Amino acid sequence: MVSLADYSPEVRDEVKLVREQVATLHAQLTRWNLVVWTAGNVSQRLRSADLMVIKPSGVRYEHLTPGSMVVTDLDGNVVDGAEAPSSDTLSHAYIYRHMPDVYGVVHTHSTYATAWAATGRDIPCVLTMMGDEFGGPVPVGPFELIGSEAIGKGVVDTLKDHPGCPAVLMRNHGPFTVGADAEAAVKAAAMTEEVAHTVWAAEQIGTPKPIEPADIAKLNDRYQHVYGQH
Amino acid sequence: MVSLADYSPEVRDEVKLVREQVATLHAQLTRWNLVVWTAGNVSQRLRSADLMVIKPSGVRYEHLTPGSMVVTDLDGNVVDGAEAPSSDTLSHAYIYRHMPDVYGVVHTHSTYATAWAATGRDIPCVLTMMGDEFGGPVPVGPFELIGSEAIGKGVVDTLKDHPGCPAVLMRNHGPFTVGADAEAAVKAAAMTEEVAHTVWAAEQIGTPKPIEPADIAKLNDRYQHVYGQH
Amino acid sequence: MVSLADYSPEVRDEVKLVREQVATLHAQLTRWNLVVWTAGNVSQRLRSADLMVIKPSGVRYEHLTPGSMVVTDLDGNVVDGAEAPSSDTLSHAYIYRHMPDVYGVVHTHSTYATAWAATGRDIPCVLTMMGDEFGGPVPVGPFELIGSEAIGKGVVDTLKDHPGCPAVLMRNHGPFTVGADAEAAVKAAAMTEEVAHTVWAAEQIGTPKPIEPADIAKLNDRYQHVYGQH
Amino acid sequence: MVSLADYSPEVRDEVKLVREQVATLHAQLTRWNLVVWTAGNVSQRLRSADLMVIKPSGVRYEHLTPGSMVVTDLDGNVVDGAEAPSSDTLSHAYIYRHMPDVYGVVHTHSTYATAWAATGRDIPCVLTMMGDEFGGPVPVGPFELIGSEAIGKGVVDTLKDHPGCPAVLMRNHGPFTVGADAEAAVKAAAMTEEVAHTVWAAEQIGTPKPIEPADIAKLNDRYQHVYGQH
Repeated sequence: MVSLADYSPEVRDEVKLVREQVATLHAQLTRWNLVVWTAGNVSQRLRSADLMVIKPSGVRYEHLTPGSMVVTDLDGNVVDGAEAPSSDTLSHAYIYRHMPDVYGVVHTHSTYATAWAATGRDIPCVLTMMGDEFGGPVPVGPFELIGSEAIGKGVVDTLKDHPGCPAVLMRNHGPFTVGADAEAAVKAAAMTEEVAHTVWAAEQIGTPKPIEPADIAKLNDRYQHVYGQH
Repeated sequence: MVSLADYSPEVRDEVKLVREQVATLHAQLTRWNLVVWTAGNVSQRLRSADLMVIKPSGVRYEHLTPGSMVVTDLDGNVVDGAEAPSSDTLSHAYIYRHMPDVYGVVHTHSTYATAWAATGRDIPCVLTMMGDEFGGPVPVGPFELIGSEAIGKGVVDTLKDHPGCPAVLMRNHGPFTVGADAEAAVKAAAMTEEVAHTVWAAEQIGTPKPIEPADIAKLNDRYQHVYGQH
Repeated sequence: MVSLADYSPEVRDEVKLVREQVATLHAQLTRWNLVVWTAGNVSQRLRSADLMVIKPSGVRYEHLTPGSMVVTDLDGNVVDGAEAPSSDTLSHAYIYRHMPDVYGVVHTHSTYATAWAATGRDIPCVLTMMGDEFGGPVPVGPFELIGSEAIGKGVVDTLKDHPGCPAVLMRNHGPFTVGADAEAAVKAAAMTEEVAHTVWAAEQIGTPKPIEPADIAKLNDRYQHVYGQH
Repeated sequence: MVSLADYSPEVRDEVKLVREQVATLHAQLTRWNLVVWTAGNVSQRLRSADLMVIKPSGVRYEHLTPGSMVVTDLDGNVVDGAEAPSSDTLSHAYIYRHMPDVYGVVHTHSTYATAWAATGRDIPCVLTMMGDEFGGPVPVGPFELIGSEAIGKGVVDTLKDHPGCPAVLMRNHGPFTVGADAEAAVKAAAMTEEVAHTVWAAEQIGTPKPIEPADIAKLNDRYQHVYGQH
């Protein structure tokens, strides 16, 4: 079995850094009310090797430390860590193998996103924030059982039809989000819950007005290329 | 009257430990928004004697200390403690006497779980998280008045028909949850509110899709035997 | 004009104590999400003189100190304090003059209680927690403009028809609660919002089942006479 | 290009003060749950020069410092600051140029206010709190793309028809609020979300009762001229 000692100092340094980042980002899941108890996880792929860092399975958020984060290869084999990795490890690994631009993956069961997932309905694109972040509706993916890479395949297959969209609502299950790093995927998870809640609320008091596809395209283009610090 | 001084040092040591655990776990009830003011309680049964540790009655959460936790026997008689025990003590005791694998009991009035309880509807099993934690729907139990062991009997009788399920929604009242220790019961209370909220939200925007019984069984089996750190 | 220096040392000591209590209890309004910005107030009547202590008008909760609390007589005239008292002062004073057992009054605009108030509907008694705390439905009071004692009169007149109930939902406005001291009134305010939210949620997924009047009476009697530390 | 060094010491002192105020007020956006991640911004116009201070673009709230706030002129040109200003800068600037009494502007995507914006419905005036703060319904403004001053023009044009109202719900987008300073605009943002949530909730359980226009006028007049510390 391969161990972290077999990797270069550069890789080991990145592992140390990413462990801190991934551990810290779990606090953002609770900060934005995206998770209850242990029901969500963050991973980040390394730049310097085909490895990823992911949350250990079934550990409460207040007990997470950088050292408890598990390092696996992109087939989900543990390379370093005293704890068993998240039950979703094989799915995170599948996503990294099949989406080369993705370096961060997040899974939650956030309340309103999961409500949409339970009904099997895409969240319609009726908010400028959705045009910005998702470039269209947030799609529902297939029903898959946890424990294999099937959920990861469902995420990848669904996103093929929604280029640029960082979120999938896995049916009866909850959202998976991806990004250029773990922070971007956490942000997408927070945005997914926010738009899920807002559009849900809008449907209770009327019919949300759709945004024209041309306007959605303009919003998404500006957001991806102009917004923020460059 | 029996007092704690009549018990062995081993029992007194466990009492001290469990008082700390039970006092600390009440902070998780407020952490996950499961209670308002004093409206919820946690107990844990001892391993070393037929005793349990439970919250005092009507005391605000910020005033709880390990020393204020009340020790009773499994008929609800106070063995140690300066305060009166929770109004639900006889029901906790009944559950421990009739469910020998249960060492933790929690009662809350959490908002969405209690909303289901008010309508008398079971929460249908439409989320993988429900398959994991509950192995099926979350059932409603009978209407019973507080103050006797009747509520405990309602919980036990209802769970006989739902083996493996750790939660009952007592009609017009609120959820009771059980577990292998108090922490497991608190986790079940947090999960009960989360799925109650999510399925409630799903019903406002469509028809939640049921999960096949065979898939529910697979989810529950994996969660009980594979998930977490073993 | 009368000033606090005209009162006995005993009264001045009680003023000091009650100012601390009332200032501290405002933190419970934000703790339980009952208020936004400055939109709620707590007062307590003194035992040693016909005086009350109330929040200053329009001051943000994080800026409140015991010293900023205003002392008025039971006609609402300022006896001590550098700031103008709450706009609701005359109504608090009216309640104290007409309900001799009441020593605490709280007003909020808490979200779900105010939603019921906007529709003019009483909250039906479908939860054991309502039987405990309110002894029946939470009633709606008349529409009255702020600034005079009219709101206080509306509260008193409405509670005459609901003996033992500590809450009124003033129409299009928000809840007022009363108690044996300010803490009891704050507790009633927290309970009012909780049951308003829960019954509201129940109505979205079915028809909440009423509790028999005889059972409500038993719940209320036990709660008022047995619950808590005696 | 003009720089801050070209301005008088008085202006530079005010810039320093307003940077602290604006940075601090962003914490109130998260305090009252008005924003997720980076999705909201506060600005304040100076009294001593035709300048404004605004949030940098796409920076997380916990990373904001007074020094990171950007100073621009009232055409949106950067005068001082290491970061790019908010994407909404041109719209804030437009509002300041066209509403001379406005010295504070806030934009959020707060959940329930944005839900109303998605449906294109004004929030009807059915709460005394709305009479106080808004003097009538909260109006919906036009759909406009972000990045130019078009949103600011939509805000100004909409408020022309609602004198005294400090909030507009930009269609499919979210609320903009204005005030005599940034704190007043933040307060209006918090109040907008609160009344959006309350009226939304009221519509789920009945028909909110309208308040008579004469009563709304009385409420608004008292609130603007009597409420608070004068």
